[in-house]
Amino acid sequence: MAILVVGSVAFDSIETPHGKVDHCLGGAATHFALAASYFTDVRVIAVVGEDFLPKHEAVFAARGIDTRGIERAPGLSFHWTGSYAGTLNEAQTLGTDLNVFERFEPKIPAEYADTEYLFLANIDPVLQARVRHEMPKVRMVCGDTMNYWIKDHSANLAKVLRELDVLLINDGEARMLSGETNAVLAANKVLAMGPKSLVVKHGEYGATAFFCDRSFCGAGKVPRPFRAPALPLAEVVDPTGAGDSFAGGFYGYLASQPELTPAVFRRAMFYGGVMGSFAVERFGTERLQAVTREEIDARFELFREISHLDPTV
Amino acid sequence: MAILVVGSVAFDSIETPHGKVDHCLGGAATHFALAASYFTDVRVIAVVGEDFLPKHEAVFAARGIDTRGIERAPGLSFHWTGSYAGTLNEAQTLGTDLNVFERFEPKIPAEYADTEYLFLANIDPVLQARVRHEMPKVRMVCGDTMNYWIKDHSANLAKVLRELDVLLINDGEARMLSGETNAVLAANKVLAMGPKSLVVKHGEYGATAFFCDRSFCGAGKVPRPFRAPALPLAEVVDPTGAGDSFAGGFYGYLASQPELTPAVFRRAMFYGGVMGSFAVERFGTERLQAVTREEIDARFELFREISHLDPTV
Repeated sequence: MAILVVGSVAFDSIETPHGKVDHCLGGAATHFALAASYFTDVRVIAVVGEDFLPKHEAVFAARGIDTRGIERAPGLSFHWTGSYAGTLNEAQTLGTDLNVFERFEPKIPAEYADTEYLFLANIDPVLQARVRHEMPKVRMVCGDTMNYWIKDHSANLAKVLRELDVLLINDGEARMLSGETNAVLAANKVLAMGPKSLVVKHGEYGATAFFCDRSFCGAGKVPRPFRAPALPLAEVVDPTGAGDSFAGGFYGYLASQPELTPAVFRRAMFYGGVMGSFAVERFGTERLQAVTREEIDARFELFREISHLDPTV
Repeated sequence: MAILVVGSVAFDSIETPHGKVDHCLGGAATHFALAASYFTDVRVIAVVGEDFLPKHEAVFAARGIDTRGIERAPGLSFHWTGSYAGTLNEAQTLGTDLNVFERFEPKIPAEYADTEYLFLANIDPVLQARVRHEMPKVRMVCGDTMNYWIKDHSANLAKVLRELDVLLINDGEARMLSGETNAVLAANKVLAMGPKSLVVKHGEYGATAFFCDRSFCGAGKVPRPFRAPALPLAEVVDPTGAGDSFAGGFYGYLASQPELTPAVFRRAMFYGGVMGSFAVERFGTERLQAVTREEIDARFELFREISHLDPTV
């Protein structure tokens, strides 16, 4: 089934110990869409400026992504400037030029009205809620957020959380949202805010899924967390978009499956890690544009090999 | 096969958000020995003072641990005072009273001479090397160390590293020892210093094993890392000794097996996580004294369930 993602299509200027790039294509919706496109059809709602050129459009087109929902506005696209140091686990934001994104009013093309899988990337929760309500046929909603919305827009965010099937955030966001330092207590508090499931990303340590209902753990089973590994990588060139790529792999795989079962959910967690591991191998979207489904499935097997008790090959 | 551990038997005074204990039985060799005792026979070489009473001795005896190598010296035992805050991932040391441990000269009882599995807990690398050389029948040596020895005793430590089959350290120690922030580059540098395998502990995120030879990955296979999960716990009462308990579960299981295969090594990584997860549930050694083999094996299955693609139960 097709996924609709609403979020940022942007340009990033990034410095890491491996080098520097200026105005490369980025944004949460971009990373998400590219990662998900290896699993299912993807539709995008975003706004870009006049600096979004045919060559950028071509990146989406090459992956068969439906960009009819990307609005063109006068002015420049959202531009983020950041740098990484040390373990590359955390970006330092040096500049955020919202530009056309500041007045982003998501418009849903008529062709998208039948979408059943919605991903609300990290944008103003007021917009997240609005898109959700304008999509009556949606049967699953996944969402992301960030410290800015948690800190200063908590009432609006609370409304979105109540409608999510899965919330995907990182450790720091889970702690901030819950006020708890213990990961399990934090997860329980976040789940009490509404999302049916919670996926907490740990960067180089993988991700953990927590459930508040039993839909993904199997009928009659006690809800258990599920831990997916990350792949230890000798070279992390650029971590930007790793979390969005995780979300794209995770949700793209879920949407591609005829039925949502505990086994499917587990595999989705692994595919999330797989897409995150590719994303960081090159600057920007370079790796996600060029990876093949064969490489993805080989890496999925590698994830299994490095984490399962019985060596498979 | 019996394991011999040489290290500290001490008293700990600990404060965590869950409470405070004064002079509870602790020390690396204690946690290691208790954890390993659920898998195989354990022998201990350590030194204690006059404050080590029959009730402390009884803790070892109750687990069938051979304490003939624990020397009694005039004075007080090693006493560590520390506190934890926040995520409980790191201890703040408030006091280190070495007492009788300051002049620790490990003496190997004649009855221990046939030991084949040696664990060198975190002590002066000069002593680690000496014990290693006085044990000619040893066929496997595992060891630990800490930032103090890495920083100020690197030449002595280098000699020990060359003789280790497995080095068990945490993320921070791996970074300090290698000078690398990337986990894979750090592991490669540490392995180049001599140990045949490296296990890096990540606290609440589990542990990763790296190999420089193929003994544990299977003949003809490319060496791959192996990631073992940790169990998300709602209540971490006291993290003291979690790493030593991991080492005890890991090495105890290895020593209990007739043959060392890749599958055995992977299971050992899981048993390490299992014993670490029990250790932190209560202050000091309380939980490790009272856990049962049935609970251990049930938790091993839980570790499998929370990390494997195919839900087993």
